[in-house]
Amino acid sequence: MKTASKRVDYSEAAELLLAKDNIMILTHRSPDGDTIGCGFGLYYALKSIGKNACVLCSDEFPRRYHYLYTDYVEKHFTPDMIVAVDIADTKLLGAELKKYSDFIDLCIDHHHSNTKFARNTLLDGDSASACEVVYKLLVQANIPVTKTIAECLYTGLISDTGCFRYPATTPETHRIAGHLMDTGISYAYINRQVFEMKSKQRIAIENYAMSHMEYYLDEKCAFVAITHDMFSEMGVTDEDLEGLAPLTTELETVEVGILVKEKDEGKFRISLRSVKNTDVSAICAKFGGGGHFFASGCTIDGSLPDVRMKLLKAVASQMGIDLWVL
Amino acid sequence: MKTASKRVDYSEAAELLLAKDNIMILTHRSPDGDTIGCGFGLYYALKSIGKNACVLCSDEFPRRYHYLYTDYVEKHFTPDMIVAVDIADTKLLGAELKKYSDFIDLCIDHHHSNTKFARNTLLDGDSASACEVVYKLLVQANIPVTKTIAECLYTGLISDTGCFRYPATTPETHRIAGHLMDTGISYAYINRQVFEMKSKQRIAIENYAMSHMEYYLDEKCAFVAITHDMFSEMGVTDEDLEGLAPLTTELETVEVGILVKEKDEGKFRISLRSVKNTDVSAICAKFGGGGHFFASGCTIDGSLPDVRMKLLKAVASQMGIDLWVL
Repeated sequence: MKTASKRVDYSEAAELLLAKDNIMILTHRSPDGDTIGCGFGLYYALKSIGKNACVLCSDEFPRRYHYLYTDYVEKHFTPDMIVAVDIADTKLLGAELKKYSDFIDLCIDHHHSNTKFARNTLLDGDSASACEVVYKLLVQANIPVTKTIAECLYTGLISDTGCFRYPATTPETHRIAGHLMDTGISYAYINRQVFEMKSKQRIAIENYAMSHMEYYLDEKCAFVAITHDMFSEMGVTDEDLEGLAPLTTELETVEVGILVKEKDEGKFRISLRSVKNTDVSAICAKFGGGGHFFASGCTIDGSLPDVRMKLLKAVASQMGIDLWVL
Repeated sequence: MKTASKRVDYSEAAELLLAKDNIMILTHRSPDGDTIGCGFGLYYALKSIGKNACVLCSDEFPRRYHYLYTDYVEKHFTPDMIVAVDIADTKLLGAELKKYSDFIDLCIDHHHSNTKFARNTLLDGDSASACEVVYKLLVQANIPVTKTIAECLYTGLISDTGCFRYPATTPETHRIAGHLMDTGISYAYINRQVFEMKSKQRIAIENYAMSHMEYYLDEKCAFVAITHDMFSEMGVTDEDLEGLAPLTTELETVEVGILVKEKDEGKFRISLRSVKNTDVSAICAKFGGGGHFFASGCTIDGSLPDVRMKLLKAVASQMGIDLWVL
């Protein structure tokens, strides 16, 4: 039975972790560098002090992050603690892990939108990444941050800040990056893995996106759709489609970018990006989604023209633009 | 008359600067974020302690850096000191400024390849950017780093490290970034200006480059040429062509990327990038160019097929690949 949710601080969270010996770590579906970085950063830290741990995910970890789990061997044990990392809502547990929804002892997160689904929630909304929260937790718990742990945490740090570019980045983010780099991490290699290294399919899909970008609202809004037909035709994988959204804001006039991916026919995953004053989480909330001020997501079903029109109307309204006078 | 060149440390360089009142600052031709950031960072610092200063360049400053010099008014004065920033060789002064070649009192630089052309050289080859050298110099000189100065220096820092990604980045780079961010700089805006904001022409030229990329040496080497005809046809400016080289190393198998720009007919500016173990400065040195291990440049005259073959041979040789057995 689920008990009431409690907000805990770093010291309480450290105590909770240190008191248990068999810790199961859950990462979110469609895993990104931050949730994977948290998962394995915490895993190696717990192993280093003699605890059992494992890292689970509903989906496969993308190939580009393989360097984070080359030394990982899943050992079976009965958990006495379940920890969720970088998970704002139980919906993000995904198909495989949703069975744990009511049994999560500790959630470590940085999303203001966290629904406090866990028994204990360590929420640090000022952190640009959940990996920064894990870093501060390890420091609090007196667990030394080794190079292996640092490579995990650095991965999350750069993933969620777009390599220190996004507005959530803080001076603290840089100071933590400096500490992580002191351990001798292969940061250039990691940056190439996370951001630069592309498959031929990825290069093709980016070219496609950039040459099919549509501009609306006085070129303040960019829109591009990748349909189901198209990506099966181009032979791209889910991994090839991860992190495409920043492409939508490349044109100098654009303030809000919309990326639409038709995962299944008539089911569209939407990613919104803002580079100025528009709160895209408010737009996504209208469609049952959420996220951050500058980066949010939602799902809309329907036909592509309908989805396009719904989104453009919502963006125009949020930007205070009257569609009728354009 | 030119006197012997002396290597100075931060303290000596600070003394030299503080002893003079009318300081002319020279930036390099084809100015990038690092030389402009140094130039205006130093300019605002000198002005803040009551000195006269000006910033000169042989070429126009690219529009994307306009935020660094909106408050700049060039006032004429007779310099009692000439300072070169981020300039490794007098060749980089360009057409307008080469007349100062023999009269440079202080060069502030971070290139190991610096030719010690100035009377005094403050060379810190461990710094990822010349702006880091200027930062440390200002700290040494007890000149407070204001938000305005910090925005200049941050611009150089991210320009030369590809936003903390390139291998030259150090823990110190992050710590300095943290200090600069403490002043409240608009880092997300600056990052968008430096890296993300693109003109339609730029987007078109990137699409062109990515869809015309040629792969050689078992796909370890990428090559793309932008000819004179092509960019006049596409209506791109020099600014649109700046910083295209990283595109050449996007494919996951690539270790060395070659970007060829035909500035005038039959005259090719070459940019080489390395993402693994190949020293591209050694390759460029063969053609009279230079730079860093991971990023270098040179100029070759001839026909495009000849230039391509010369470069591929030099790359293969540097990588230890026997062209005949491929």
